Order: sequence, then structure tokens, then C-alpha cells
Amino acid sequence: MQTLIDTLYKKYASLNAGHPATYIPELAKANPNDFAIVVTTTKGEQFCAGDVDRIFSLQSTSKPFIYGMALEEHGREIVLEKVGVEPTGEAFNSIVELEKRTHRPYNPMINSGAIAISSLIKGENFEARLSSMHTMFERYVGHRLNVGKEVFESEKKTAHRNRSIAHLLRHFEVIDDGIDETLDLYFTQCSVLVNTKDLSMMAATLANYGVNPMTKMAAIPSRYVGDVLSLMFTCGMYDSSGEWAYSVGVPAKSGVSGAIFGVVPGEFGIAVYSPPIDEKGHSVRGLEVFKDLSHECNLSIFRKTVKVP
Amino acid sequence: MQTLIDTLYKKYASLNAGHPATYIPELAKANPNDFAIVVTTTKGEQFCAGDVDRIFSLQSTSKPFIYGMALEEHGREIVLEKVGVEPTGEAFNSIVELEKRTHRPYNPMINSGAIAISSLIKGENFEARLSSMHTMFERYVGHRLNVGKEVFESEKKTAHRNRSIAHLLRHFEVIDDGIDETLDLYFTQCSVLVNTKDLSMMAATLANYGVNPMTKMAAIPSRYVGDVLSLMFTCGMYDSSGEWAYSVGVPAKSGVSGAIFGVVPGEFGIAVYSPPIDEKGHSVRGLEVFKDLSHECNLSIFRKTVKVP
Amino acid sequence: MQTLIDTLYKKYASLNAGHPATYIPELAKANPNDFAIVVTTTKGEQFCAGDVDRIFSLQSTSKPFIYGMALEEHGREIVLEKVGVEPTGEAFNSIVELEKRTHRPYNPMINSGAIAISSLIKGENFEARLSSMHTMFERYVGHRLNVGKEVFESEKKTAHRNRSIAHLLRHFEVIDDGIDETLDLYFTQCSVLVNTKDLSMMAATLANYGVNPMTKMAAIPSRYVGDVLSLMFTCGMYDSSGEWAYSVGVPAKSGVSGAIFGVVPGEFGIAVYSPPIDEKGHSVRGLEVFKDLSHECNLSIFRKTVKVP
Amino acid sequence: MQTLIDTLYKKYASLNAGHPATYIPELAKANPNDFAIVVTTTKGEQFCAGDVDRIFSLQSTSKPFIYGMALEEHGREIVLEKVGVEPTGEAFNSIVELEKRTHRPYNPMINSGAIAISSLIKGENFEARLSSMHTMFERYVGHRLNVGKEVFESEKKTAHRNRSIAHLLRHFEVIDDGIDETLDLYFTQCSVLVNTKDLSMMAATLANYGVNPMTKMAAIPSRYVGDVLSLMFTCGMYDSSGEWAYSVGVPAKSGVSGAIFGVVPGEFGIAVYSPPIDEKGHSVRGLEVFKDLSHECNLSIFRKTVKVP
Repeated sequence: MQTLIDTLYKKYASLNAGHPATYIPELAKANPNDFAIVVTTTKGEQFCAGDVDRIFSLQSTSKPFIYGMALEEHGREIVLEKVGVEPTGEAFNSIVELEKRTHRPYNPMINSGAIAISSLIKGENFEARLSSMHTMFERYVGHRLNVGKEVFESEKKTAHRNRSIAHLLRHFEVIDDGIDETLDLYFTQCSVLVNTKDLSMMAATLANYGVNPMTKMAAIPSRYVGDVLSLMFTCGMYDSSGEWAYSVGVPAKSGVSGAIFGVVPGEFGIAVYSPPIDEKGHSVRGLEVFKDLSHECNLSIFRKTVKVP
Repeated sequence: MQTLIDTLYKKYASLNAGHPATYIPELAKANPNDFAIVVTTTKGEQFCAGDVDRIFSLQSTSKPFIYGMALEEHGREIVLEKVGVEPTGEAFNSIVELEKRTHRPYNPMINSGAIAISSLIKGENFEARLSSMHTMFERYVGHRLNVGKEVFESEKKTAHRNRSIAHLLRHFEVIDDGIDETLDLYFTQCSVLVNTKDLSMMAATLANYGVNPMTKMAAIPSRYVGDVLSLMFTCGMYDSSGEWAYSVGVPAKSGVSGAIFGVVPGEFGIAVYSPPIDEKGHSVRGLEVFKDLSHECNLSIFRKTVKVP
Repeated sequence: MQTLIDTLYKKYASLNAGHPATYIPELAKANPNDFAIVVTTTKGEQFCAGDVDRIFSLQSTSKPFIYGMALEEHGREIVLEKVGVEPTGEAFNSIVELEKRTHRPYNPMINSGAIAISSLIKGENFEARLSSMHTMFERYVGHRLNVGKEVFESEKKTAHRNRSIAHLLRHFEVIDDGIDETLDLYFTQCSVLVNTKDLSMMAATLANYGVNPMTKMAAIPSRYVGDVLSLMFTCGMYDSSGEWAYSVGVPAKSGVSGAIFGVVPGEFGIAVYSPPIDEKGHSVRGLEVFKDLSHECNLSIFRKTVKVP
Repeated sequence: MQTLIDTLYKKYASLNAGHPATYIPELAKANPNDFAIVVTTTKGEQFCAGDVDRIFSLQSTSKPFIYGMALEEHGREIVLEKVGVEPTGEAFNSIVELEKRTHRPYNPMINSGAIAISSLIKGENFEARLSSMHTMFERYVGHRLNVGKEVFESEKKTAHRNRSIAHLLRHFEVIDDGIDETLDLYFTQCSVLVNTKDLSMMAATLANYGVNPMTKMAAIPSRYVGDVLSLMFTCGMYDSSGEWAYSVGVPAKSGVSGAIFGVVPGEFGIAVYSPPIDEKGHSVRGLEVFKDLSHECNLSIFRKTVKVP
């Protein structure tokens, strides 16, 4: 595995395509040459290549974890009432399907669904809800994570579309009043800072049915891990989820900061970080690494066997 | 004419269909039996039937006047850059066409376009902009109009969809920051209080090419009257504008408070008020009165002749 | 008037923009330099400039006439049941609104509506229906018109989208079996050959409330002329109908062969022919001529006065 | 396993909800009480309950098999050029996404994609192409299958929407001329007759990586089995694919005749038949049986383990 990821690192380090996200000014400052790959087994072993300590914000890679938290706090039934589990065929930030179809967000992996899920986080007040979110992330990664203040402010200031979505969700009574607080929670989850090793450990925790491979602590009840992985599989890569399922075949989630993580249940978690993204919002080097890894290791859940590293 | 509108009043006073608008709590309190018809000629003569002094809020009937104001303040070119002149085929409060198509609101008669137009009102600060709007209305009606505080507060509190639209307009850079102020201007124009005689006078002013028939003062430069009437004709009745053009054939605008006004250029203005509205937001009695009036007086701009009252 | 159209002819003869329609191979053969303007008064006087005898196919300019024929044969009620009178905001050949909305075509000026209208033409068999159509056109133009066989065959062979529309109309039970015959009627009406003088005479007949100014024969009952003009006004220029109403302000219809005709009720009919069309399907020179004419002669139905030539 | 499916049969035999499909007259004749469950292991063992010999037409359950055939005949690249692999969020017979989005059908499990795939079947003439299709089905099921003539004729006569789709595909040049032949192939694949044991064997062949468990003959090269299963997983249950992935978690396909089959890779194939379908086109009893089976046997590919029967 180490040899393989070293090879992939070298192969794609020179791939120059895509650009760091520009719509959030803070993300535009990322170094396009940053590139890291980390595989973490369910036994806790880590295989690293590249800038694995470089810090970045979770952005949409936070969505599966917050979804899991909502399932734990409210149970399936209540969560399903608020947000569906259907792929949309629309872009990640689309507002159309809300209006034209069910008024319930299609799934928790697109912005409208994620904002609705954020509104569900329990707590007496904003600080308590924030603290609860931090505790959840800590269980996955094994240590406390910081929030990027500049990213948070940058998100908050430019999030006209997300604000529009939140008000439409309020109109359709998917969320309650307290829109600003809900959006602040949402911007915070997007602004949580990790490095590629952290994200890979979070992926490995899902691969290990919810138990952190190092700390042996449960980050999420195992009965909800399948729900999270299922959503990641069908909806995690937005409107290229079908192509991902077809060509890579593992549950995964990408974020506009340039991160993608994938889960091979029972085996290992994978995280790749590289800021240049394509027009659909996926890390260009990340897509290539995952395709090669899936092919080399036969990772697809619909292919015959999975080789342990 | 007096005989005719007396007859129409009697004919439709007993028509019980539709319900007062419920989505703004203040409007739901309207008396469904209220019913008034006023025709005002370009010479200033008024023919009245029913509760012609009953006060109601302008709601969307304010849109053509604010549009005219924007044309006067900025000229055609700048206004057209912000808001188009095309019918949508969508409902008045649709958000879809913004996302899917041009990102520029289709026309100033739907909410998205009207909010963008409100953002154009000039003035050093909010009070100056508000004052400018009041002065404009005063020119049309001949006296100062009040704003319904309860209606305004009611609108403001429940306007989640309009708030969503405003943030999306901001996202697409159709409007600038200052969303709350723009929305307050928009809610104010909707909350301006008139009676049916006032609205009929405003209509007659447009029929008189911009000059108030009583005060003889210009409310809008005559070169912009055609623009306003054209927009009313093609877009004023939302997604039933085509049917209206076909069956009534005069430029008109309706509002969810139950008002409809129509303009017969060179001849007279018509206003009908009756709170129960149909599912498209038009006063039920108002629709019937206009159809009959158009048929009796041959009002359609595509029919042969127009008889003066 | 003669001076004016001579001036406009010279002004725009050198305007090189747009391209002849290419999707029907036969139309692609048109000479992009062809350009003709003809104004015909309701008294029968004709003012001509350019290649006024050049032959072209009616294409979509046939739609208002067939619609008038359907009104005469079936009455308003039955025709309205089949096809609406609402602008769509979609392109002329869109199939979306059929599926998403009412299943009834939005209006008779777009392809779906026109095909549905063609299905209504009465007659014992195809020849009788065809003959009835020819007789109708003859009443408008004053003499028998030919059908362009090459155009007809060209249309028929390449009309995959229209065929798709027809089958969807059949699915929604807007039209009956006999799809091929209906489409043949539709392709025939599109392939009728005229010159600019003919089309101008047809326009003048509508301007003259249905009576041909030369033959004094009624081409359509006068009570349906307003219906036809209303539809032309709100829907005749497809998804730029609103802009046309705003900037030109007369009922009009364009076709992809490069023809546009407009009607000034009680005054005159205008036809312009020039093959290069813009991306919305309108003759580029035609648009300019109409804009200038409307401005020079104050033609807009919402502007103050109309000067007779 | 036998006990389990006996229990499920009894549990749901009395469930009366849904109605046999009515839009194809021949399907409306089905007996709503028919109900059968068959599980076939990759070793060839069959567990049966109910009317397992009752004959029905494949309808959309044929789509994955034809898709596999196209992959074998043309390879991935060419097939992907014609038809995508993305879920749509739209109903199975939608025509909108073709127009509004890519012009390439979203995936081969919806009608537009399946028709495009049918056009790819190789052969010198219609009979050769038909024969090739029959041979393919024979490899999966172990014996020759018949075509239901009445169903075929019934489909052909009423398929206005599919005909509309085919012409639109032709317009966008996804398919060539020869629309009638392509549709006849498509109607034939839908009209192939099987019983529940046959369909279960076809499912078990996919579960056995392409090799029929009884005949030991390869029905499809094993390298394409993953492609077919991936498509079934993300798109097989139309616009409830996400919910199915979430609640059942196995690749599956349903048809309006009331059949659903599912594949547990390496383990077994499942087929359920019961004509009453819900408004999305899925067998009502079928949905319940699959949910219970998945829960009882822990079948979801994202849940921990799979127990062999």
C-alpha cells in the first residue's frame, strides 16, 4: 500500500488542472501544489504520502458526520421527515428542486439538506450546540479540532445563496426561526480545520463501523454507520455520484477545499487533499487517485474481492 | 357607465368564491363581502359602486408605479439591465426562473423583479428613499397616502420566500448589500393604503398619459407611460396574463389584497376591490367585472372601437 | 411612408448579422442578401422596397392564420380546451412545458400548440383538409398559393423534434391518432410559398378586421381577429414576445425563413423578409426595421397616436 | 431461508394495496392476488414460496440485462458516450432531463436510456438482433424464453410517450434512423415472458459474477457485472433509488408488471412477483418483502455481514 500511494503521489503531483475554489475568498488562497494521500486501516495503521500535515477546512466533507450526529440525536424517523435520501441530478447548491418538487431537501449531502440537518443539532443554546458538534468530531479524529476563523468569516460574508436556501427552507417550514444561528452552525462545521491524517482517521472510523481504530471509542452508534455510508454512496459526490459509484464504487464525500475521503467498510479509510477542483467541485488529483486506487485494489463494492493493504 | 357598473355590482355582489389571502395574517382579516367598482375618466369624472371608501393595501398593484419611478430615475437602459420585460409562465412568487435561466428577473411584475426594482429607488438614506416613494404615489392619487403598520409588520414577519429571493438576487449580483433596507422598501410599497377611488385615480392618471386628471400634475413623464402599460399588459396578471390579454385586453395589475386596476389609454382607469382571491391570486369578483366591462364597452385594444363612458 | 421604407431598406441592407436557418436544409440555401419591406394599408395601397417578389416559405408566420381558421371552424371554447393562450418563457420548440405543467400546449404560436391546432382542421380526408387550408390562405392573399415541395420534404425528413412533440401530444390525448397526417398538414402550412407583397396583404387583411383590402372579401370573421392579434401580441415572438411588446408594441409573428409580419389595427400591415436570423429565430434585419418603424410612426398600441401613412 | 420466505409470503399475501399497471392494457389483466418469492443461491439452490410458475413479462427488469449486452458488444467507452450513469431524480418515463440538460439520457435504467441502449444491439437485420437478444436471455435463465405477443402489441400500440422519447433521441443524434426497429426491439425485451423462478435464476447469475449457477455457462463477462450492479444500485428503482439503497441496500430492478429482482453479490439472487404496484411503479408486496429480507439477513452492502441461506 505504501508503495502504491507513493507511486500515485508521484504520478499525479505534476497534474496541473482545475483551480482552488474562488467563491469563498479564504479558499482561493490555498496553494495549488499542496497534495497529500493518507490511508488508515481499521487496525489504525497509516500510510502517508505528501503534505499530510497541511491544514484545510472540512467544507462539505463535514456533512456525513453531522448527518450521523442527527441520526444519533433524533433517530431515523424524525431525520427522514426533514431531509430525504434521494439523489437529485442537480448541482450541490441547487435551489430548484426545493421549489419544484417536494419542498423537503432531497438529501443531506447537498447544501439545502445539510442546512436542514444543522438545524437539528440539539443544545440549550448556541454554545452548547457548538460544543456538542466539537465533541462529535473529537470522537472521530481522536483529538480536539479548531475552527478557522478567517474561513468562517469568509463563508458567512459571501453565503448569499446559502442564506437564500435557508429562508426558502423556513418558508416551507422545514426549519424553524433561528436561521442565523442555524447558518452559523453550518458555517462552523464547514470551517473545522483538519489535516489529511485527521480526515483519513475519520474515514477509518466509519470503515471500522463507528469505532475509532486508535482510541477504540465509538464515534457513532454502529447501527447508523450503514445509513451514513449509503447516503455517501448515492449522493456524496453530488451530480457525479452515479459516475463515482460506477468508476470508483466506494462511499465517499468531497469538499470544495479540495478534500475527498472514501470508506472501504471493514478495511480502511482513504483521504486525499489537493486544492485544485473541477467545475463540479471535486479535487482533480483526488478523483484520479481514487480511480487508480479502486482499480488497483479492486475496491468497488460491486467488484469481487477487496485486498487488505 | 354608472348604470353599467351598478348592474355589475349587483350581479357579482352575491358571487361567493375564493378566499381572502391567508399567507399574510393581516390580509386574512379582510371582509369577504367588501366589493367596490370605480371608473375614472381622463377628464376626472368618477363613477362609483359599492364600498368605494374601504381602505386596503396596494400589495402588487404598487409594482407598475414603482417601475415607472425607476424608469424616471435611471432611464430605460439601466432598468433593463437589472430586470427584463418577458412573461415567465411561472407563478408570481417563483424562484425557479432566477436559478435556471438568466439570473436577471424576468419582469418587474413578479416579486423577484419588483424587489430588484425597489433596490433602485434613489435617496441618501432609507427615509429619503421612503419619502421619494410617498411623493410619487401622491402625484398619482392627488393626496398623501398612509402606510398600514400592521400590514407592514405582518408582511415583514412572514416574508421568508421574499427574503430567499432577495438573497438569491444578491448572490447573482442583481442587487447590492442592504437587503434588509430593500425589503423594507418593498414591504412598505405593498403596505400603502388606498381606497378604490384612489386606485381608480391612479389608473386614470396612466390612462391620461401620466397626468393626474384632477390636479393636472404629471405623475410620471409621458414617455415612460407606454413602458409601464406594456409591462402590465404582458406580465401584469402573472401566469394568467395571456388569458387576460385574450379575454379582457387592457393593461392591468392585480394584488393579493383583492384589488385589480386596468387602464384604457386616452379614456379611463378602472379599479375593482373585493378581497376573495382565486388560486392565482386574483380577485374573483374583479375578474368577472373586468371581463364583463371589456365585453360591454369593447375595451380590448385589439377590438375595433372604444366607447367613452 | 415610401421615403421612410426606402431609407430603412438602405440603412439595413448592409447589416450583416445572423445566418439563414440551417436546421431545415432547404432553408439554408436562401440568399442572405435578400431583403424586402412592404407596407399595405387597409385601403389596399402598397409601399415596397427591395426584393419584394422573392419567394419564401411561411414557416411559423402561418400559425396565426391556421389559428384563426380553427376558431372559425370550432369556436373559442373547443379551441381553448386544446391549446392555451399563455406565453411560456420557453423557446419556440420547447417540449418541457408540456411535460412539467399542464399537458395542454401553452399557446398556438409555439410548435406544440400549432401542431395541436393543425389537428383540428376539418375535412373528410387529407385532400379535403389541405384544400380547406389553401382556400383560407387564398382569401387572405387574394390568389392561390403554392406549396414548396422541396421545403415540405426537407421539413418532413428532419422534423424529429416536431415528431417527438406530436407523440407526446398524443400521449396526453391533446391530439388523436393520425399523427402522420396532422404532421403533414403542419409541414404543408409551413411550406406555403409567398412573396413579401403577399404576406403584407395578409397582414393588412388582419389590420382591416378580417377583410382583404383589395378583394373586399372576408378572410376570417371579424369577431375572431382580436383573438388572433392578442395571441400574436403576447406570444408571437416566442420568448422575446415581452421585449417585442415593449420595444415595438404591435401584434406580430416571425418565421425561421426570415419573415416577420406586423399588424397595426385599422391602419396597415407590414411584412419584412430577410433570411439571416438570430439565435431566437427572428430575422435580424426584420427586427431592426420594425423597431425603427414603430419609433418613427409611433406604432405601439400603448403610445399616444398612430399616424396613417 | 425457506422458513423465512414462507413467513414473508404469509405476512404479505393479505396486503392489499396498489393496483396492476393500467397504462398497458395487457398488464391490467393481471391477477392482483398473484404473489411469488424465489431465492436462488450462487450454488443453484432455490427456495420458493407462492405462485412461482406464474408467467409475466419482464418490462423494465429487462434493462440491466440489455445494458450488460451492450457493454459486451461495444465496451464501456462507446456505451458511456450514448448513455450516462447518473441518477435523475425524475420519474422513469421523464422526458424533461433530455431537453433541459445533457441531451444524453441520464442512465440506462430509465426509458430514454434503455431505448438508446436497445438501438446498440448488433445484428445484420432485425431478426439477427432479436435472436442475439434471445440468446443472451437464454444464457441467464438456462432455457429459451418466449415473447408475449399480446403484451408486445399492447405496448406497441400505446407507447406514445416512448415514441416521443425516441424521436427526441433521434433529434439529439443519440440514436440513428430506424426508430421503429429500435422501438420494436425495446418493446420485445419488455415483453419477454418469465416466471419468478426464471427471474431469480437471472439474478443469481449476476450474484455469481455472470456465471449461471446451474449450467455453469457465462451469461456476461464477469468484468461487466460490476457495471450492471452499480447502475442497478444507484438507478434501478427510479426516483426512489436513494430510499431503496438506504433501506434495502442491494442492487435491484423493478418492472411495472410487478416484478422486482435483487442481487446479493457472491451469495444469492432474489425475485418477487406481485402485480399491484404503487404510484412509482414498484410492486407493493415486493417492496415489503425486500425490506424485511434485507433486515432479517443483514443484506445491505453497507451493513456488517451477510449470512448465507
